[in-house]
Amino acid sequence: MRELGEFALIERINAGRVQAPGVLLGPGDDAAVVAAPDGRFVVTTDMLVQDRHFRLDWSDPRDIGRKAIAQNAADIVAMGAVPTAFVVALGCPADTPVEVIDGLTDGMWAEAGRAGGSIAGGDVVRSPQLVISVTAFGDLDGRAPITRAGARVGDTVAVAGRLGWSAAGLAALAAGVDRGDELVAEALAAHRVPRPPYAAVLAAIIDAAAGQVDSDTSAAGVLGSRQSAAAGTVGSSAAAMPTSLTDISDGLLADLGHIAEASAVAIDIGSTALRDPELEAIARRLDADATHWILTGGEDHAFVGTWSAQRELPPGWTPIGRVLAGHGVTVDGARRPGSGGWESFSGVDSASEPEPR
Amino acid sequence: MRELGEFALIERINAGRVQAPGVLLGPGDDAAVVAAPDGRFVVTTDMLVQDRHFRLDWSDPRDIGRKAIAQNAADIVAMGAVPTAFVVALGCPADTPVEVIDGLTDGMWAEAGRAGGSIAGGDVVRSPQLVISVTAFGDLDGRAPITRAGARVGDTVAVAGRLGWSAAGLAALAAGVDRGDELVAEALAAHRVPRPPYAAVLAAIIDAAAGQVDSDTSAAGVLGSRQSAAAGTVGSSAAAMPTSLTDISDGLLADLGHIAEASAVAIDIGSTALRDPELEAIARRLDADATHWILTGGEDHAFVGTWSAQRELPPGWTPIGRVLAGHGVTVDGARRPGSGGWESFSGVDSASEPEPR
Repeated sequence: MRELGEFALIERINAGRVQAPGVLLGPGDDAAVVAAPDGRFVVTTDMLVQDRHFRLDWSDPRDIGRKAIAQNAADIVAMGAVPTAFVVALGCPADTPVEVIDGLTDGMWAEAGRAGGSIAGGDVVRSPQLVISVTAFGDLDGRAPITRAGARVGDTVAVAGRLGWSAAGLAALAAGVDRGDELVAEALAAHRVPRPPYAAVLAAIIDAAAGQVDSDTSAAGVLGSRQSAAAGTVGSSAAAMPTSLTDISDGLLADLGHIAEASAVAIDIGSTALRDPELEAIARRLDADATHWILTGGEDHAFVGTWSAQRELPPGWTPIGRVLAGHGVTVDGARRPGSGGWESFSGVDSASEPEPR
Repeated sequence: MRELGEFALIERINAGRVQAPGVLLGPGDDAAVVAAPDGRFVVTTDMLVQDRHFRLDWSDPRDIGRKAIAQNAADIVAMGAVPTAFVVALGCPADTPVEVIDGLTDGMWAEAGRAGGSIAGGDVVRSPQLVISVTAFGDLDGRAPITRAGARVGDTVAVAGRLGWSAAGLAALAAGVDRGDELVAEALAAHRVPRPPYAAVLAAIIDAAAGQVDSDTSAAGVLGSRQSAAAGTVGSSAAAMPTSLTDISDGLLADLGHIAEASAVAIDIGSTALRDPELEAIARRLDADATHWILTGGEDHAFVGTWSAQRELPPGWTPIGRVLAGHGVTVDGARRPGSGGWESFSGVDSASEPEPR
């Protein structure tokens, strides 16, 4: 890295990359220009620090790059928006092998492409350890953002994507199991590279928007109007718009807690609906608790949302519970102690644990 | 910090803050929503690492926060865009006093307000040292972005803002001079908090746009059309649009080098126009070279641009040179050795030096 120099490095990072159509001006000037056809853009940012959020001896650089983009893209999708572009600030030691940077950036570009965007620009600086700071952008195409605040008493709670697999992979790594049978290998892969079901979530939202009778397409100041319109009217489509939505980054219970708090409701989920026999097989092998992984593991970047109980759930969504009057989150009607989710400044400093928003 | 916990910290950071009108949805959900009335947005990102880009014993947290926002806002303004919002990812050790975070965030909010925006969201994580990653957004209001690529042979080169004062302040700190006469105090203040002349630069651009005969206000895909239109037509306003523009973050010569390269031209500047008797007085005291500070110091975040020589320069801009055929940058017709500007992975590791884009 030191030998290459910064400007040559930036040139190397950007060489041969093809920008998404929404990136109107890419790297190379004081700033980039990104399309926002909606007249608004959705934005989120996350920082990942070496040995805190990832370890180079547990994940290869390409996987780390993919994960950094995936966790930001999942936040964009969790607002009901389509990812359009990313910018990345990268801190790295001067003796970082250039292959590590190549792997990181290749992984970032691969995942950006999977999510539907490209990397419009960034910054490279020297720092004592690798630090990756990603900012992601999305477009709502005239829809209201789907916040955590819209869940209503009686709604169905449902998840898209697998839960607990990344936590199982982390537990395997922590136990020194870095290979094993097919199931363990799958958990390790899930930990190294989350695969948030972007397309399934966005397809459901876009279908629901298309089916709404209230087809106002104005994009000016419609925070919430679409969402509330969706509540009462029955469109031509069978599928409904979620009333609330979030990605599971802190753990299912913690993230449901955010929905419950923002919506001023209680949520109860059923443990039976969450059971995963394959995950239980891995847990037995590692002498661990699969239910704990499912309820508190955050790094799968699955999605959880709430839907009117009068409407069909879209394909790819599994019902797991119900919105109730009150506050807090319960499992089978009971509060679960010690499952508050991840906080940055408490607890042990184990690498690769999920970060809250 | 550890005692407070992350969620309480985030609540504390956001308590009582008033968002700019363009922030449609602020902190607290998976992502924020920011207005982009132009149908596009300008975006830039910079990372600052403790003891590399700032030192807590040389600057107070509030000044560091201001500087982090200022250097990003300057990049937005350097594209001809009006700053609208910022997002900030912050890494900090668990034992960081909460007063340091309060100072950083107060400084960020103060400078965001000065630049015309607010802080729409962010992330807080644990890291071995302070890391501040800012992403800034701006709106072009229908104008073409002003890139580094539009300088034409014969254009006048001009600067807005002071040059070399931040470098003088850094030199004073490095020499152990942390107080002194009024001039040294001014240099120290300039180093601690840059004051990019956002308003002067934007006023000139907005005036020039208003004066253009070609008053097409379409925002769709106008990359370059406004700018090229500005070249040939004489509007009702006396002032012209810059043909190229950048903020001085790597040093005047290095940043002029970026314009020269992007525009495929040469640039010659005159040393007489750049002389600053007050800076020379400081340099004599520190046994240093004021011209070197002016030509290579980057942290003032002044602006340099090029204008048609047939038109008046707007108020606040000082002519310093001329665009010529050829390539490279010269001072009084001669190439200056050893003034290539700052690179992240070469040179000494002194704190508080400017970062290139």
